[in-house]
Amino acid sequence: MALERLSQAKCFGGTQATYQHSSAETGTAMRFAVFTPPQAEAGPVPVLWFLSGLTCTEENFTVKAGAQRVAAELGLMLIAPDTSPRGDGVPDDAQKAYDFGLGAGFYVDATEAPWAQHYRMRSYLETELPALVAAELPADMTRQAISGHSMGGHGALTLALRNPARFRSVSAFAPIVSPLNCPWGEKALTGYLGPDRAAWGAYDACALIEDGARLPDILIDQGTADSFLTTQLKPELLEAACATAGQPLTLRRQEGYDHSFFFIASFIADHLAWHGARLRG
Amino acid sequence: MALERLSQAKCFGGTQATYQHSSAETGTAMRFAVFTPPQAEAGPVPVLWFLSGLTCTEENFTVKAGAQRVAAELGLMLIAPDTSPRGDGVPDDAQKAYDFGLGAGFYVDATEAPWAQHYRMRSYLETELPALVAAELPADMTRQAISGHSMGGHGALTLALRNPARFRSVSAFAPIVSPLNCPWGEKALTGYLGPDRAAWGAYDACALIEDGARLPDILIDQGTADSFLTTQLKPELLEAACATAGQPLTLRRQEGYDHSFFFIASFIADHLAWHGARLRG
Repeated sequence: MALERLSQAKCFGGTQATYQHSSAETGTAMRFAVFTPPQAEAGPVPVLWFLSGLTCTEENFTVKAGAQRVAAELGLMLIAPDTSPRGDGVPDDAQKAYDFGLGAGFYVDATEAPWAQHYRMRSYLETELPALVAAELPADMTRQAISGHSMGGHGALTLALRNPARFRSVSAFAPIVSPLNCPWGEKALTGYLGPDRAAWGAYDACALIEDGARLPDILIDQGTADSFLTTQLKPELLEAACATAGQPLTLRRQEGYDHSFFFIASFIADHLAWHGARLRG
Repeated sequence: MALERLSQAKCFGGTQATYQHSSAETGTAMRFAVFTPPQAEAGPVPVLWFLSGLTCTEENFTVKAGAQRVAAELGLMLIAPDTSPRGDGVPDDAQKAYDFGLGAGFYVDATEAPWAQHYRMRSYLETELPALVAAELPADMTRQAISGHSMGGHGALTLALRNPARFRSVSAFAPIVSPLNCPWGEKALTGYLGPDRAAWGAYDACALIEDGARLPDILIDQGTADSFLTTQLKPELLEAACATAGQPLTLRRQEGYDHSFFFIASFIADHLAWHGARLRG
């Protein structure tokens, strides 16, 4: 089997596991966490991908979001990938900053040295990992949804906008909606893709929508007490892009919530219900 | 104010906070986490104390158990203390073992050098911290319940058995039920209390019940796939002690669950409902 199981625990009647495999895209061992609901005993189940934010691994969403309870009720598989390649030979930010390099892959295929060799999270998530999941796990790949938080919300939005046929639904918590227009994005995309901003558009949800990408709808929760709200996240940019393009968007501003997993945990059940309704049948 | 607030986040309509204060009992700065449900805006709310297991701090239960959702529904304050004193001058196990010293206070008042000066978790939790909570937080101290996991399950059971008038209800996840009869307990109590096992009885749930301590009832969940089940936890000892003494006990063996927080998360709602029913009115 191409997957090595590193851990496994029963959880809400299903199974929470961590797997490791050798990735051809990143050239490293990659880890991801999977919750398999009890319904998988009867046959393949729909899949919700959850992409995490800066500094996270496959573990953060898995242990902090409390998503397994509702996933077990709805019969959803939850897959939480890592946020970057890791290991010997994988370069990191020169100052070990939290917002570039390890833990900060930004879900792109890097084109600049020295990042291009390993930082291929786009292809890893668009091609390699779904093929592995389809081959090895009881997943119904005709029923996929995607969500994410912060940098992972950016990842979820851009993956879905580039691959609308793959995902039946998309949501995000406090996403970076336009890396072209915030310091995190400008640093990361300059580093991974180089200074030509024309190459960045495939990794910017607002730019993708402006260029014609469409989804049936989008759900976003954003806390009003999020310390990154006005400097990095700027949901009003996505609101404007969607309004101009006629792209349906449900953007909920949640009064007093911050950027933490306490915010995600408070609303994850709403997101799972949203995805569950669109993954049925 | 005697409490310094280190962090605060909105969570399920309530507030999750971490506090620090100077403890006279331990002679150190002590931290604890508090979830205050939205109902506290209208007046004091009942309190559920949750004592954590070996290696934990106030953070583990707070971020991993998913307890805030139901606590917000039931109007329960959740208080998660740390598991030992920490900081400069606090001695640790000579080999830095996980099962003694830092992160492993075993909820005792140590009598042996060099532990006796700082390792006073019994008095901290029986006297000092409740007084501080009563003075500083919107807690209805006439309605208290207690729960815990593993070493913290031992702490919850023994605190409740020694103080039946304080707690309306007690539950535990995979508790150490008899430190007198397991390697973890023998190591810890020898270290903190010395070799005279007569001094250990106040810290052994089975011995307390054999000596006449009684509670209205006790709820325990124990996973059957728990790797510590037969060597350290031994729920059959508590079952036998309760049967002999006529102490009501609801012991649920949960098929296939291990010792992790995935187990706790799977059943925390049941425990909160149990406590909520007994804390009403």
